[in-house]
Amino acid sequence: MSLTTARELVAQDMAAVEEKIQQAVGDAYAPLSAALETLIRSGGKRVRPMLTLLAGRFAPPPERSRLISLAAAIESLHTATLVHDDVIDGARLRRGRSTLNARWTPSSTIMAGDFFFARAARLVAETKHPRVIQMFAHTLEVIVDGELRQAFSARDWDQPKESYYQRIYGKTAALFELATHTPPVLGDAPQTYEEALRRFGYHLGMAFQIVDDILDFVADESVLGKPAGSDLNAGIITLPVYFYIQTPERRDQLLRMLEGHPSPLVIRDVVGMIRESDAIDQARAEAQAFVDQALADLAGLPPIPAREALADLARYVVERHF
Amino acid sequence: MSLTTARELVAQDMAAVEEKIQQAVGDAYAPLSAALETLIRSGGKRVRPMLTLLAGRFAPPPERSRLISLAAAIESLHTATLVHDDVIDGARLRRGRSTLNARWTPSSTIMAGDFFFARAARLVAETKHPRVIQMFAHTLEVIVDGELRQAFSARDWDQPKESYYQRIYGKTAALFELATHTPPVLGDAPQTYEEALRRFGYHLGMAFQIVDDILDFVADESVLGKPAGSDLNAGIITLPVYFYIQTPERRDQLLRMLEGHPSPLVIRDVVGMIRESDAIDQARAEAQAFVDQALADLAGLPPIPAREALADLARYVVERHF
Repeated sequence: MSLTTARELVAQDMAAVEEKIQQAVGDAYAPLSAALETLIRSGGKRVRPMLTLLAGRFAPPPERSRLISLAAAIESLHTATLVHDDVIDGARLRRGRSTLNARWTPSSTIMAGDFFFARAARLVAETKHPRVIQMFAHTLEVIVDGELRQAFSARDWDQPKESYYQRIYGKTAALFELATHTPPVLGDAPQTYEEALRRFGYHLGMAFQIVDDILDFVADESVLGKPAGSDLNAGIITLPVYFYIQTPERRDQLLRMLEGHPSPLVIRDVVGMIRESDAIDQARAEAQAFVDQALADLAGLPPIPAREALADLARYVVERHF
Repeated sequence: MSLTTARELVAQDMAAVEEKIQQAVGDAYAPLSAALETLIRSGGKRVRPMLTLLAGRFAPPPERSRLISLAAAIESLHTATLVHDDVIDGARLRRGRSTLNARWTPSSTIMAGDFFFARAARLVAETKHPRVIQMFAHTLEVIVDGELRQAFSARDWDQPKESYYQRIYGKTAALFELATHTPPVLGDAPQTYEEALRRFGYHLGMAFQIVDDILDFVADESVLGKPAGSDLNAGIITLPVYFYIQTPERRDQLLRMLEGHPSPLVIRDVVGMIRESDAIDQARAEAQAFVDQALADLAGLPPIPAREALADLARYVVERHF
């Protein structure tokens, strides 16, 4: 399973999205544009704009350029939140490269994030579609709410699983949902398509973040591009941790080990304990369940090539690095 | 000269704007809402939404609620940039109260700023007017560009006066311009009204920031609500500094004094030197010229009470604290 089918299907549109993103950076204030360019180039797999372009195939809007702007807006919003997240987490590595935060002052990083917010706002305004713009603004609120919940719930070992789900909705699934929900709105698709695509994005996004949270325990640092256990180090309780501490003895031991300011060696030991436990399989089962739901959502859509590409993408999400 | 006439004229609409802003904060994530409420309550004179409401009188939109949303959006955007500015400047006092930055971690402050960006986006989306939304997004870009220019031009003593003007356009005048330009667009006013109101907002905003920059030298700390000379301390070259260093001897002395990390006592001495010089009167003359242009812009508008209120507001801007 890979992203090849999906990528080939929307290659031409994706090139236009890339150009749109580059262009937005090209006319930025000169001292900034080099840094922004690096940020853009190092930028991940473009899963979100790919989702937007594929979802757009079920009801192409009258003007293709509006879908391109929308996809570029969604990727820009993603970049903005990544940049601010890196300040918030104090992260110094992401995707194997040093983050902007590690090389710039926090102030410059805040401004770079704000810059991408502004570009996202401009790009989504180009859709000229009031409902799409409202959905976009609402998602930004959900994302910020998720950031806040994550910050305020750190080291709260008693939080229910629902809190975790609420947080990862804000952190990831809300933007995936936006990526697949807005294209049918823009293209004036039938209500059933709209709902199927919205649900697909939501379920896929939830699975995606659970897998990310599992990888933080099981993947090599070389694959992660950052130290393993970094969430745990920040006191963020992800699904593997949640399952792990459901056993009182394990919980007591883990809390004792993480008391105060645990050293990197202690973190590594805790990561090892969780990695070797059944908590990973339990979390993996939940990710799989979300992917199964995402695949089921596709049944409500016509069998065009984009549907198969979305299914591939969903299967890829759970299988990467496992 | 005071804001009383303007305030009375739009009192009812302003109450609706306040309610709209409070409401946006009320349904925020609980641990945050108290802090946000403080921020909102301590929030200045509401000059920007007042401008929006007054400008709206020249061509009321079909639905009053859209103008209210627009005014609340503009104030929320202003709050967002203030919050991030405080992290960027490391400011610990604003309007005589400790800033969010002084009481929270930088991360929380970033998130609080992002929260207001998100609310601003939601509120402006409520206007459902694509062109207004595009203007709003564009202004956000100009503001961020201004922040960046300010950060990158710090301690560049050779910058031309135009750089200062470009920076204060981003910092202040762009949002004033947006505040007066968007209402006639929303209300589908004649092109001449639109242009007159846009120019008025621009000229007023430029005057407002020059006056702010003068106050940073001449006002008491008790009036400023923050230490005098704080821009100078941060290496930001404002108009009084620009005029002061046009004389080579004064320039040499000032640069010598500010070398390295000048102590608060040295900053106080430099503030005193600039305050006693003719640089203040030169800057004041420029502020007055902008206000005169703003007043002239009003001639293109019908003589309704809102026009007199805008004129009062313009005169107030230069006269406050002088």
